[in-house]
Amino acid sequence: MPTPPPTKHVYAFGAKGAEGNATMKHLLGGKGANLAEMTAIGLPVPPGFTITTQTCADYLNTDNKLPDGLEADVRKSVATVEAELGRSFGGAKPLLFSVRSGAAASMPGMMDTILNLGLNPNTAEALAAETNNPRFAYDSFRRFITMYSDVVMGVSRKAFEHMFDDLKQRLNITKDSDVPGPALKELCGQLMSLYRDRTGQDFPTDPWKQLLTAIEAVFRSWNNERAIEYRRLNHIAGLYGTGVNVQAMVFGNLNDDSGTGVGFTRDPSNGENAFFCDVLFNAQGEDVVAGIRTPEDIGALKLRQPKTYQQLLDVRQKLERHYKDMQDIEFTIQSSKLFLLQTRNGKRTGRAAIRIALDMTREGITTKDEALMRIDASSLNQLLHPSFDHNAKRTVLTTGLPASPGAAVGKVAFTPDKAVELAGRGMSTILVRLETSPEDIKGMAASVGILTARGGRTSHAAVVARQMGKCCVTGCSDITINEEEKYFEIGSTRVREEDVISLDGTSGDVMLGSVGTIPARLDDDFATIMRWSDELRTLKVRTNADTGPDAAKAREFGAQGIGLCRTEHMFFAEDRINAMREMILAADDQGRRKALDKLKPMQKGDFVDIFKAMDGLPVTIRLLDPPLHEFLPQGRILQKDVARTIGVSVEMITAATERLHEMNPMLGFRGCRLGIVLPEIYDMQVCAIAEAAIEASKAGVKVHCEVMIPLVGTEEELRRLRRRAETLIAGYKDCPPMMIGTMIEVPRAALIADKIASHADFFSFGTNDLTQMTLAVSRDDAEKSFLREYVARGIYPTDPFATIDREGVGQLIDMACKLGRKVNPKLKLGICGEHGGDPSSIGFCHDTGLDYVSCSPYRVPIARLAAAQAVIRAREKR
Amino acid sequence: MPTPPPTKHVYAFGAKGAEGNATMKHLLGGKGANLAEMTAIGLPVPPGFTITTQTCADYLNTDNKLPDGLEADVRKSVATVEAELGRSFGGAKPLLFSVRSGAAASMPGMMDTILNLGLNPNTAEALAAETNNPRFAYDSFRRFITMYSDVVMGVSRKAFEHMFDDLKQRLNITKDSDVPGPALKELCGQLMSLYRDRTGQDFPTDPWKQLLTAIEAVFRSWNNERAIEYRRLNHIAGLYGTGVNVQAMVFGNLNDDSGTGVGFTRDPSNGENAFFCDVLFNAQGEDVVAGIRTPEDIGALKLRQPKTYQQLLDVRQKLERHYKDMQDIEFTIQSSKLFLLQTRNGKRTGRAAIRIALDMTREGITTKDEALMRIDASSLNQLLHPSFDHNAKRTVLTTGLPASPGAAVGKVAFTPDKAVELAGRGMSTILVRLETSPEDIKGMAASVGILTARGGRTSHAAVVARQMGKCCVTGCSDITINEEEKYFEIGSTRVREEDVISLDGTSGDVMLGSVGTIPARLDDDFATIMRWSDELRTLKVRTNADTGPDAAKAREFGAQGIGLCRTEHMFFAEDRINAMREMILAADDQGRRKALDKLKPMQKGDFVDIFKAMDGLPVTIRLLDPPLHEFLPQGRILQKDVARTIGVSVEMITAATERLHEMNPMLGFRGCRLGIVLPEIYDMQVCAIAEAAIEASKAGVKVHCEVMIPLVGTEEELRRLRRRAETLIAGYKDCPPMMIGTMIEVPRAALIADKIASHADFFSFGTNDLTQMTLAVSRDDAEKSFLREYVARGIYPTDPFATIDREGVGQLIDMACKLGRKVNPKLKLGICGEHGGDPSSIGFCHDTGLDYVSCSPYRVPIARLAAAQAVIRAREKR
Repeated sequence: MPTPPPTKHVYAFGAKGAEGNATMKHLLGGKGANLAEMTAIGLPVPPGFTITTQTCADYLNTDNKLPDGLEADVRKSVATVEAELGRSFGGAKPLLFSVRSGAAASMPGMMDTILNLGLNPNTAEALAAETNNPRFAYDSFRRFITMYSDVVMGVSRKAFEHMFDDLKQRLNITKDSDVPGPALKELCGQLMSLYRDRTGQDFPTDPWKQLLTAIEAVFRSWNNERAIEYRRLNHIAGLYGTGVNVQAMVFGNLNDDSGTGVGFTRDPSNGENAFFCDVLFNAQGEDVVAGIRTPEDIGALKLRQPKTYQQLLDVRQKLERHYKDMQDIEFTIQSSKLFLLQTRNGKRTGRAAIRIALDMTREGITTKDEALMRIDASSLNQLLHPSFDHNAKRTVLTTGLPASPGAAVGKVAFTPDKAVELAGRGMSTILVRLETSPEDIKGMAASVGILTARGGRTSHAAVVARQMGKCCVTGCSDITINEEEKYFEIGSTRVREEDVISLDGTSGDVMLGSVGTIPARLDDDFATIMRWSDELRTLKVRTNADTGPDAAKAREFGAQGIGLCRTEHMFFAEDRINAMREMILAADDQGRRKALDKLKPMQKGDFVDIFKAMDGLPVTIRLLDPPLHEFLPQGRILQKDVARTIGVSVEMITAATERLHEMNPMLGFRGCRLGIVLPEIYDMQVCAIAEAAIEASKAGVKVHCEVMIPLVGTEEELRRLRRRAETLIAGYKDCPPMMIGTMIEVPRAALIADKIASHADFFSFGTNDLTQMTLAVSRDDAEKSFLREYVARGIYPTDPFATIDREGVGQLIDMACKLGRKVNPKLKLGICGEHGGDPSSIGFCHDTGLDYVSCSPYRVPIARLAAAQAVIRAREKR
Repeated sequence: MPTPPPTKHVYAFGAKGAEGNATMKHLLGGKGANLAEMTAIGLPVPPGFTITTQTCADYLNTDNKLPDGLEADVRKSVATVEAELGRSFGGAKPLLFSVRSGAAASMPGMMDTILNLGLNPNTAEALAAETNNPRFAYDSFRRFITMYSDVVMGVSRKAFEHMFDDLKQRLNITKDSDVPGPALKELCGQLMSLYRDRTGQDFPTDPWKQLLTAIEAVFRSWNNERAIEYRRLNHIAGLYGTGVNVQAMVFGNLNDDSGTGVGFTRDPSNGENAFFCDVLFNAQGEDVVAGIRTPEDIGALKLRQPKTYQQLLDVRQKLERHYKDMQDIEFTIQSSKLFLLQTRNGKRTGRAAIRIALDMTREGITTKDEALMRIDASSLNQLLHPSFDHNAKRTVLTTGLPASPGAAVGKVAFTPDKAVELAGRGMSTILVRLETSPEDIKGMAASVGILTARGGRTSHAAVVARQMGKCCVTGCSDITINEEEKYFEIGSTRVREEDVISLDGTSGDVMLGSVGTIPARLDDDFATIMRWSDELRTLKVRTNADTGPDAAKAREFGAQGIGLCRTEHMFFAEDRINAMREMILAADDQGRRKALDKLKPMQKGDFVDIFKAMDGLPVTIRLLDPPLHEFLPQGRILQKDVARTIGVSVEMITAATERLHEMNPMLGFRGCRLGIVLPEIYDMQVCAIAEAAIEASKAGVKVHCEVMIPLVGTEEELRRLRRRAETLIAGYKDCPPMMIGTMIEVPRAALIADKIASHADFFSFGTNDLTQMTLAVSRDDAEKSFLREYVARGIYPTDPFATIDREGVGQLIDMACKLGRKVNPKLKLGICGEHGGDPSSIGFCHDTGLDYVSCSPYRVPIARLAAAQAVIRAREKR
């Protein structure tokens, strides 16, 4: 992290220009940086100032003490805005502010916002007089009291909203904007009383006190639970805190010529070059985002205010050409005058990302390289999964807004907890909610699809679902949800919790039961992006596959070989595991050999299939890795069963289980240690590989096989096992040449990689285990104890099992590559841990000079794109 | 390992001088190198030649094929000996050879030896005629057939010896040398028939065939099980194989003016400058070592052959002055002519080592530095343990030969297996045997003392026991052992298996029951060696101690502070563990704090005791390290008990046990991870330390406390925990200054040591865990699976948990020291793993520039000497 200037707390933007710009996101937050940028390029932005993220960090790090000088800076900046607008804060022609959070990474709805700050009984009355609109003035005051109570004092806004609802009911009014001014004024008095009841203090009428306490509250919201959870889920780390944007209010709720809107400059679902925008007249922005009222399409603005509409289209074009990317904007219209309140690069689905990238290049906005960099490689994942079979029978219950594409089939859950529970039991689940809020994030993450009754295509549910790549249908207004009795109804159909439904995120269809799906069809746009990527990248992409069909699938996705074929997976099949158990229970090597003889033809058959699927491409086969106790049956009943089947006593099985039990199996008797102590196992596997290679070759297949010896930590292990394997292979006539190498997964192996390299044709970094050992973290255990906390609190910048820990594990990998290549310049280098499918880690692999990454079949396209992005990024650095 | 010249298989010694010398042990084995050296300095050595250890390695590595050229070299060398002695191999004036193993490290009795090779019916008859002594000739032939069958063909010698015993019984003769020649000749014929029955082949009469097959058998004996086991037990690794010494026979069994002897140039038990030598007339060497006949003291030789005796005394002096060390010799007298067959540095007890080192310096033989280098630092251990209280009541059953000093109390075991079993059940055991053989090694290692009925002070039991530092009484001829019914008798007293006896290895007393012991008294010699060591060494020596008494004990032994005080040991005490459990079971931090409040005064009290014991010296206190589940009760009954005691439900305990269960606790939720996630635990500990420091200071104690944070793997962990601890400490007035540092035990910590060092006042290398993680070896698990095999087969050169793995773990330590000191030149560096008490690892610590090592109290003197030896060794290298 670059160290920011220590003293400048506040960056202004307004008629005199902007102190910040779009590159200063880390210091100003995304919102603040872009407000400055938009001001600078001449877009209409209400004046204001941004308090830096570093100021937030200072505040939080000093037990919530506002830094010296901040208040003075704020007062000075307020004065500037006052001068520009000719209004005064707390004065007779009152200036009001919005106070909004804004971090360097987008965290929509996670932190707090206060609008209409500066109102009190006096300024409200002044505003009413000035605008000649008491309804507007007291509606704004009502909102302010509610938000301030909630955000600053932590009093739930429910009670305040209840009071408003009661009022509307008493007056028999349904539309907020129909409540008359006097009634709202009276309500504001009641709300202030409620405030006193709940907090024991008078509602603060001093606007300066309002402002400073609001700033503090926004600072504190950086560390609220949902913000921490969001950062964890989205791998956001390394930030100082949130910026605070204090900006002059403009009023979408002033009158019917006013309104507020949010939208995307292109369609974030499919990428179409169409303005994707919703507008709500006589309302403030929060009303749209929260999904409380369902907004109208932007067409409504064209009808009502053609000039403003045209102005908005110009802004749309200007922003896209300036940022060279699709934008997500917020604006307000005050008495037909347009104000931009926010712009940022818009979240989008994988499909949309590809379409937008290609279109913008065709439109001359971006270069090919820029286009590739605009696509979040991970989002390609969404394209590779199945969609509904149009020929399958479907019972469409209703159709909502297609908010995020995809085909989801799962059991209904009405609460996030239920969704998490069902997912925990291994079931697909669809979260059904009236509308979603940040508290639902966990449940959304656990679900395959989200269905809401309220909210538009820019509601919370829609935004988050698109970002997560989850299927989502929103605004399904004809369903009624009974949360207490756990069902929802559409017409006469009642769907209960755990009933199965299907959601089509592309059409908006909600269907009863499980609808059949068909595999992904990869369109021309996808193919173009892959072609552009392949032209650029230097890193090869292989796949981790243990069977012929998996290998074939991966090859379709562009895999250039197999980087990891785990032979043990073959032993777990029902027809094999008992032979494996006989081997483990055998008293001596003769007994083991006998059992292994049964396994050999099956292994050989598997290998033949794989060689055929990968004809002409390299295939890395790893010899047996897991500890033997994993193959033994657990539990008395199963043990009895197995004992009968393979004809030994139960006591033999329990004795073996006890003998092989390990306190720390991760650091135990496995990998090449088995190969050294019980050599007949690897002997069998090597022979099966050689025989399969010969058979496949005879059938005309080009075999390039690489035998991988796992868990090597010393030179001697590899030297001896290599020699033994070579001797066996030499015993076969006509065996195609084989490479022999090792996995680098024990820290010691990386440290002595020069010695190991003299016996290895290749290294494949097993970064899952290497991470576990280098960090001393047992992944499965840590996920239920400290790992989440560590990521949430920024002790780990990201989950080290998702993205390579460059500082520690990365250092070892880099060291091993250099040491290894020094001794053996032809040494082939690859990675086969799960990191091989993670874009950031792929960038590391490129920078470190690996030859290939290997990942699961469905991540192959991601890796292809990420490898190209790594080339572009490296060029930019030069 | 230096690469030896590839082709020279054979090094000759004889009248023309020697091709080898004493420095060539690695290539010629110890025996071969010293035969060459003795030849060179003019001692009487029968001529012969040594086949190199590398030749053995080549043989074993090529599936037991004798290397090209070896046979030709052997034939040439035999011709040289024939010429020198005027005899011929297989000829009318027959030349006979001994063929003996000899590795670079002493492995007494582990590998095979064949004497009298070259005999067949013809040469035996020729020898009988030449010496006019058929008894001698056929006795030699009898021995040869027996040994050859055993060693080369693997036919147990029992049947052959039986035949000899039967013959003696038939002739009513007890003394071997009384059996007449003709009977022996007939016996030889019968033995050759037996050979044919057992092997299906004729006994080889061709001496060349005998020689080459014997050489091969000795090669193969390198990998027999007991040799592998011996190397494992004695950490012998990195050798090529065994050398083979082929040497002209001289005959101790020629007549009554002949004999054979073994001995030490000084007393190996107490170090006294007295010739410690046994001799057996009319016998071959094997008879002495095997303990079959009890030999006479060397005084017998003085009486019978005063001239030979004087010659031996001269040899003794010449050897000591030449080798500058006490020697262990073997010699043969043939018709009053002395021949040296072997010399080597003698094994000795720790007490003897000190005495000899000091005496030799006083006698002007060695310098102080040389004296220090002569002492095996580990052997000091023996001096620090208790001896019998002379005031304690003792029932002496009998008195044997005091073969290895010490005081042993334990349960009687009659077999090695039984000894291992008892030791496995945590009991002290004394192995009682008629005599011991290499097969008993395991049982000896498992016992605290060894008692034998036969054998002298140089018998197998005595030599091995001294080397192991175990108490041993041999030659206890008035006990009769009944192995089958599991008892022994002395007079009318019957002692059964598992009865307790006491052995005094200094007096030879065998006592009934358990005799009381008194602590070690360290004599002036010991103090002198320690003073010499302290004058030289630069490395400080601290101790690992968790209580005041342990700390005080260590200080007596010279500890210069505490390097590791494990606070968790304090929690396991009965009055504390339940408060600890309450803490673990608490629902929230309030509950945890309440339980911790109960523990705080106890921790504080412990710390006060320790500060007092270490007045003026540094004390490193490690905050809680182990995973919390270690404190929970296991098993339903105990859980119920605890539930009742602390007033919670059993279900709460089982739920917590389940929640805290980990697949790999070594890589789990422990160390500073607890400190981060449950900060109240470390808070309590830091406060207890601060309050104890204040209390001790007020009592006039000088407190130098170092707070150590364990399992740090990231900069953030240490930064945050340090800041938190500093804040707490700053809250106390009058608290003496505290250092705050960390254990380096996670590989990642070593890799980023520069970053960590910016928040650390010291690093302490926790090499136990660092080794486990760097090598990916769970120590407890590995010891029962592959670790022994790995050491035995030389995959690990030594047990990496006993001696630091320099190549891997050592590299990380070296890296961490350099990175750390670069950022923080004042960084204090130490080691607190068990390696801190291992002499070789201490050498590494000195070389790497650590400030101190820390080890268990009883190893402090060892570390002091080893640290001095490291200085000398480093000087020699310069």
